[in-house]
Amino acid sequence: MELYAEGGFEHTTVAEIAARAGLTERTFFRHFADKREVLFSGAVAFREFLVAEVDAAPPDVPPLEVVTAAFSSASDAFFEERRDLVRGRQAIIDANVELQERERIKMASVASALADALHLRGVGEPAAGLAAEAGVVVFTIAFDEWVRAAGGTTLSERIWALIEELRALTAASAPGARHRR
Amino acid sequence: MELYAEGGFEHTTVAEIAARAGLTERTFFRHFADKREVLFSGAVAFREFLVAEVDAAPPDVPPLEVVTAAFSSASDAFFEERRDLVRGRQAIIDANVELQERERIKMASVASALADALHLRGVGEPAAGLAAEAGVVVFTIAFDEWVRAAGGTTLSERIWALIEELRALTAASAPGARHRR
Repeated sequence: MELYAEGGFEHTTVAEIAARAGLTERTFFRHFADKREVLFSGAVAFREFLVAEVDAAPPDVPPLEVVTAAFSSASDAFFEERRDLVRGRQAIIDANVELQERERIKMASVASALADALHLRGVGEPAAGLAAEAGVVVFTIAFDEWVRAAGGTTLSERIWALIEELRALTAASAPGARHRR
Repeated sequence: MELYAEGGFEHTTVAEIAARAGLTERTFFRHFADKREVLFSGAVAFREFLVAEVDAAPPDVPPLEVVTAAFSSASDAFFEERRDLVRGRQAIIDANVELQERERIKMASVASALADALHLRGVGEPAAGLAAEAGVVVFTIAFDEWVRAAGGTTLSERIWALIEELRALTAASAPGARHRR
């Protein structure tokens, strides 16, 4: 990560990364499919944490709340105490379109895993998919605000505030729209 | 598109596509950056249509309703009468991970254009970004249902039904969640 920040992602070779980490290139490729994967090494743990939170939620909690609470806990567990590190990683991703695509793919797999976890709780479609995708949207926007902010509000607080904002947006739009058409 | 369906996307060459369309390879590349772009040739028109709808909406219509109404009109203009063609295209995309990524990128650019159009209406953040992203999620799920369904409900009807579902999900989740934490 330091190397990506120093020399730019494109100009950093796997040989340099491996050397900095005290690994051979061969060992590097045993752990990561390519040099992009280094930046996403926490993605599987993040996804599994979220799914475990959904699995552990009491049965009567409604789907979007389950998803939101999972993102809120994951924010505390993965990000809140490491804003500088997370910010450094984000700056690298922001500077590279390929990495942004990779990040989008990872979040799509998070949404799909969350929808599956909701199915196991007996949530049907379209509620499960919609709650999962809406949760990912809310988390992504909250994360984006948080990583760029100087301090103050926690990521978890931002997530809950955005759910409230989404509630307000849907409350303002849906019924009126149906009548006006 | 016929060629992709016949031989699979990976095995179809630009030379074959160009020949079928009565073009030289050179002319083909003047119109499309690569063979994947052929499938997304309507993406710019779709995005511009949505932005024009947002621009034309009366000033008092709330943001998520503006976005939803734009997707609803675009559904009628671009998809409703061409389900077989759209379904053929989707089958090609479903069979190829790279194309799915390209589609996700296109939809991210739609969300970003919609957020910009909402900014021009005086909608601030996070409402603009959230309304745009939520609209894209709703459209994507509605489209996915519609393209796989045998008939019946129109894409536009599915979009409005999902907005209603999203309203129900947020109404059930947000306030309870804040108290329960």
